[in-house]
Amino acid sequence: MPTISKKGHQMPASPIRKLVPYAEQAVKNGKHIYYLNIGQPDIKTPEVALNAVKQNDIDILSYSRSEGSEEYRVKLANYYKNHDIPITHEDIIVTTGASEALLFLFSSIMDPDDEVIISEPFYANYIAFSTASGVKVVPAICNIDDNFALPSVETFEKLISPKTKAILICNPGNPTGSLYSKEEIQQLANLAIKHDLFLVADEVYREFIYDGDTHYSIMQVENLKEHAVMIDSVSKRYSMCGARIGCLVSKNKLVMQTVLKFAQARLSPPTYAQIASEAALDTPQSYFDEVIHEYVERRNILISELQKIEGIKVAKPKGAFYCIVELPIKNSDHFAQWLLEKFDINGETIMVAPANGFYSTPHVGLNQIRIAYVLNKESLIKAVHILKEALKIYKD
Amino acid sequence: MPTISKKGHQMPASPIRKLVPYAEQAVKNGKHIYYLNIGQPDIKTPEVALNAVKQNDIDILSYSRSEGSEEYRVKLANYYKNHDIPITHEDIIVTTGASEALLFLFSSIMDPDDEVIISEPFYANYIAFSTASGVKVVPAICNIDDNFALPSVETFEKLISPKTKAILICNPGNPTGSLYSKEEIQQLANLAIKHDLFLVADEVYREFIYDGDTHYSIMQVENLKEHAVMIDSVSKRYSMCGARIGCLVSKNKLVMQTVLKFAQARLSPPTYAQIASEAALDTPQSYFDEVIHEYVERRNILISELQKIEGIKVAKPKGAFYCIVELPIKNSDHFAQWLLEKFDINGETIMVAPANGFYSTPHVGLNQIRIAYVLNKESLIKAVHILKEALKIYKD
Repeated sequence: MPTISKKGHQMPASPIRKLVPYAEQAVKNGKHIYYLNIGQPDIKTPEVALNAVKQNDIDILSYSRSEGSEEYRVKLANYYKNHDIPITHEDIIVTTGASEALLFLFSSIMDPDDEVIISEPFYANYIAFSTASGVKVVPAICNIDDNFALPSVETFEKLISPKTKAILICNPGNPTGSLYSKEEIQQLANLAIKHDLFLVADEVYREFIYDGDTHYSIMQVENLKEHAVMIDSVSKRYSMCGARIGCLVSKNKLVMQTVLKFAQARLSPPTYAQIASEAALDTPQSYFDEVIHEYVERRNILISELQKIEGIKVAKPKGAFYCIVELPIKNSDHFAQWLLEKFDINGETIMVAPANGFYSTPHVGLNQIRIAYVLNKESLIKAVHILKEALKIYKD
Repeated sequence: MPTISKKGHQMPASPIRKLVPYAEQAVKNGKHIYYLNIGQPDIKTPEVALNAVKQNDIDILSYSRSEGSEEYRVKLANYYKNHDIPITHEDIIVTTGASEALLFLFSSIMDPDDEVIISEPFYANYIAFSTASGVKVVPAICNIDDNFALPSVETFEKLISPKTKAILICNPGNPTGSLYSKEEIQQLANLAIKHDLFLVADEVYREFIYDGDTHYSIMQVENLKEHAVMIDSVSKRYSMCGARIGCLVSKNKLVMQTVLKFAQARLSPPTYAQIASEAALDTPQSYFDEVIHEYVERRNILISELQKIEGIKVAKPKGAFYCIVELPIKNSDHFAQWLLEKFDINGETIMVAPANGFYSTPHVGLNQIRIAYVLNKESLIKAVHILKEALKIYKD
């Protein structure tokens, strides 16, 4: 039989999606599941976006431009200007989700065996994109005990080797809910300039910031132009995960030319989804105000309910809609599967994301789970109750 | 300044898209262009597909499953059964275009420095996907003088090295219009089995076959199960290039599990486009009958008009909607640019694809162009007239 590649063997299975068969079986067995495992918001997509697709007048569903339609990019640049991010449409390449933007970027700036430093825990698929590109992840480890604060610049600097090509952060952070300050971003920027590295920021949760904090984008750092690459997406902002529209933003012309070659090879991003994404830019501010209000309430209830459970630690998120919870267990992979297979309260159970998939360091995060607070408050209260009762009887 | 990757430097620019700026300038200067350069059909997308999107009732545009929605895959498997291709929905992973299917496959079965044998000339982006994966293309060279017939099995066998992992064909072929017979496919299949290689067939033009010929899929070869991977797409079949929905089909479980890991990392294929693609499967046969009738007429007119031009050679296509034309010129890159910048007849010119981008062998195809007959007959006649007159005055 012909063999698959080493890379294929090394490619990690999605830590979230690998539990799906157990969840499907649980549903078949009549269980109701509260899904806390995936960043799929229950928030309605803005009507302006949905309607634009319903009212489209396409008769030939053609390729768009490889870099995305000019209309969309121009309007998107304007969105960034309104967020004090000074870019033009020429600094934007539209991609099929932030996933594709990261994959193209990794291929454009790193060769096999190059290194990328990532603040850990991180979005699990960063490992997958690194593996797909043959790139080594060097983790800058954050700790639940100081609320997953960004490691010091000195810590980052010690991790830099001759093979280091980039530092990657997610801000606000999935899976931690961390938010990095202007000062922290500027310090990282100075480090990137000093060592001639790219500073890559995944800013897909820009809108989801609570407690009056503000977001500082790497594209706002004045002297970082050649070193900064921003990754973005409509998925979370407009609850449009299924659109698959993201973008890569940089003022580095060589990076843009290189990413464009990868973009040309796959021809174009999806046309219908670009229509939805362009229209979504007209979403009224009231939509976001309501959404943020809802997430703050969810977060507050979630955290306060979790804190009532004995023996657990929880990092309070400042942004995004995730939190990492440390449990008095040994193996959250097993616990998550057990919740689906063996446990219920009146036919109800929860699905959580085991957190070790968010760490590249072996054996770390095994007693942690990630909770996405993408359910309404009533459901969150029930879900935490189920977690609490489950922990009472669960044995590793 | 931070550096881009070696891979990024090696990545080829799209041979078709690199002329786009000259075309845009020509249009700005008031020229009318007949676009023969790209496989973007002018055929209308089936209404059943367009209407399904207009009438969708989505309120939260969610992720779909990484392998594509089960409904679509089940219905798609049924389409294949109707084409005597015996597969089930479990043998299908839905991808964002055939492009993504090829990229995932290359990553799943080949590591850097592995080799893939491809019948040449080939779809230009095969080079791009190979470069992106660090894979070496070994060409099996076809010749315009025998109508780009598939090289003999002996020729293929001589190209096999210990690093060879796969043989890739496009059938019917872009850019040649070649159609491979059942016997040819079976011979290649036997070779793949003998040397334990994957046989990969890009069959996106399955419906576009003329002169009463029939298509034989690699998935129909009985004993090839573990070695066969088929790549497909809705782009050409339903004139839905902008949907960005393709698929990868194989009965090799390990390949499917590995491709799925890459698919999970990018989360899911686009949701609206899957709705369109699923509905498109209800397109009536009359649509295809009309389309094929139209393409046969276009091909016949194109070939007969081209044959009237002195000093040129043209391979008669049996399928797809491209042909390679050899011209009495030295450099078709330069000629194609000259047509856009310097030439017109009453304000009209043509855009063609220089053919050397379809060859990995250096300096081959420099006197060839690819013509996509995706325009109506009247336009094709005018376009060939422009080509004829241009050749009279063009100097290399």
